[in-house]
Amino acid sequence: MTSSEPALFCVDWGTSSFRAYLASLEGKILERNFSGGGILSLAKGEHEEALAGALAEWIAKYGPLPILMSGMIGARQGWVEVPYAQCPAGSKEVAAAIVTIESRRLGPIGLVPGVCAIDRDGSPDVMRGEETQIFGALAAMDRSEGAFVLPGTHSKWARVEEGRIQSFATYMTGEVFAALKDHTILGRLMEGASESSDGFAEGVRAASRLERPGDILHAIFMTRTLGLFDRLEPGQLPDYLSGLLIGAELQSGARGASGAIVIGSPELTARYCAAGGILGLALEPAPEDCAPLGQLALLACRRKA
Amino acid sequence: MTSSEPALFCVDWGTSSFRAYLASLEGKILERNFSGGGILSLAKGEHEEALAGALAEWIAKYGPLPILMSGMIGARQGWVEVPYAQCPAGSKEVAAAIVTIESRRLGPIGLVPGVCAIDRDGSPDVMRGEETQIFGALAAMDRSEGAFVLPGTHSKWARVEEGRIQSFATYMTGEVFAALKDHTILGRLMEGASESSDGFAEGVRAASRLERPGDILHAIFMTRTLGLFDRLEPGQLPDYLSGLLIGAELQSGARGASGAIVIGSPELTARYCAAGGILGLALEPAPEDCAPLGQLALLACRRKA
Repeated sequence: MTSSEPALFCVDWGTSSFRAYLASLEGKILERNFSGGGILSLAKGEHEEALAGALAEWIAKYGPLPILMSGMIGARQGWVEVPYAQCPAGSKEVAAAIVTIESRRLGPIGLVPGVCAIDRDGSPDVMRGEETQIFGALAAMDRSEGAFVLPGTHSKWARVEEGRIQSFATYMTGEVFAALKDHTILGRLMEGASESSDGFAEGVRAASRLERPGDILHAIFMTRTLGLFDRLEPGQLPDYLSGLLIGAELQSGARGASGAIVIGSPELTARYCAAGGILGLALEPAPEDCAPLGQLALLACRRKA
Repeated sequence: MTSSEPALFCVDWGTSSFRAYLASLEGKILERNFSGGGILSLAKGEHEEALAGALAEWIAKYGPLPILMSGMIGARQGWVEVPYAQCPAGSKEVAAAIVTIESRRLGPIGLVPGVCAIDRDGSPDVMRGEETQIFGALAAMDRSEGAFVLPGTHSKWARVEEGRIQSFATYMTGEVFAALKDHTILGRLMEGASESSDGFAEGVRAASRLERPGDILHAIFMTRTLGLFDRLEPGQLPDYLSGLLIGAELQSGARGASGAIVIGSPELTARYCAAGGILGLALEPAPEDCAPLGQLALLACRRKA
């Protein structure tokens, strides 16, 4: 077996998504399979069968291979709860905390732990899966420090120094957006996305004018009044709210840094980079496949240890 | 007829509540009837019958009397749309903009307009009903200036000078709380209210430590992690989120003022006053029945004009 042959199934298994990668030992991603469901769609005891089903074709073709998984699959509501590694945590600390379970059908499966941190106020914060993506971005970009943002339902902002995640904070931006749009009066005047991106830019600029933390509880109401007074079209209103929330997140998450590396879907990454441009923050997209690249980096660490 | 006899039906008809008051000309509230539904429960064309039904007993007893109404009943989605009066607006300006409709069943009905304003950022804001409550509080407290907060689904903060509402801002605090509790992950660990008020105070204190507008998108996530790490009991989590949002609202709404007069339900007023105490803001409850007292003040203005 050469180092470019299939050697590992890398699985990034989150709340609402399942992403499997066929990787070689030298760190090449050979094939991708995003066909499974997130852990929210499964009950306790159903994970092994779901994973076997999702990997069946690869196993038939390449035989059983070691499996490494990261993400919410290691949470209390996942397959097996894997205790968090504590910040500051680099790939060494996280690799050392990988838990291996034996599946009768699938053989040994490594579960990457999440990471926990105590924030500026002494409150705990947690991530599962994003730490692995950050290690992947560090490896792919040959870096050992920087600010990272992983936008999404729960965006994560992390500071990395000397290859270790020093601290991070969760922002509920995506979930707040959805709750406000679908479950408050703000959704009433909204229509599907318009072609114009004016609404988004307007929202980001509104965020840049906020002064106090509570100001945003007022500013979001403008999503309604700007529609009522015909200052924005119904199709621009969702973008306005999105720009307002993302703009506020960026200014809080960056906390004086001049920029950050964005690890996310192409669509969300573009949205964050556009907001950064308006706010004078240099946001730079990370390479693709950060999750399996991070898992491979953890594996390399484990082999060295 | 003496001035203490029943002379007027005052109706404060909002989105989710209907409150009718039997008033004398000298400004006494003689009876109350809160039995009807809010305008959200009615379709176009159903308001006259609903009002006739709610007032039937009083009309049978005291005969038909003039009716004055304020609140969302004068909105586009209400009975008849009454154009907003523009800030700065005192009882004189608002009284002059009352629209009177003729009901075949009920006789003349006065509809108090809402008030609109342009906020610090040039964005429009609107209220309907709260302006009348503020005029009622001014009359009952014999004041002509101050900061006023009307907590609720959409809290309003208003500045009054020389008897006129100079400016105001809406905060979606109550609706944001409900959307986060019922439609995000934050509700998952929550249980019904606990006896202890520690969670609320903890939330208010967390709000006082926020620095940037976007910080609140992070701080609300602590409602989950403080539960996950057993730092707060499940029964304290709703109070924590409530304290966080109300605390943030207070610091933004007060904007450097040393206090404000609170016009609201006894329960919400107590909650806001408690948060004010923690933040060093002197919040003082307004007298009861501000809505009909405000309508009587508007009527007195109209008679003088």
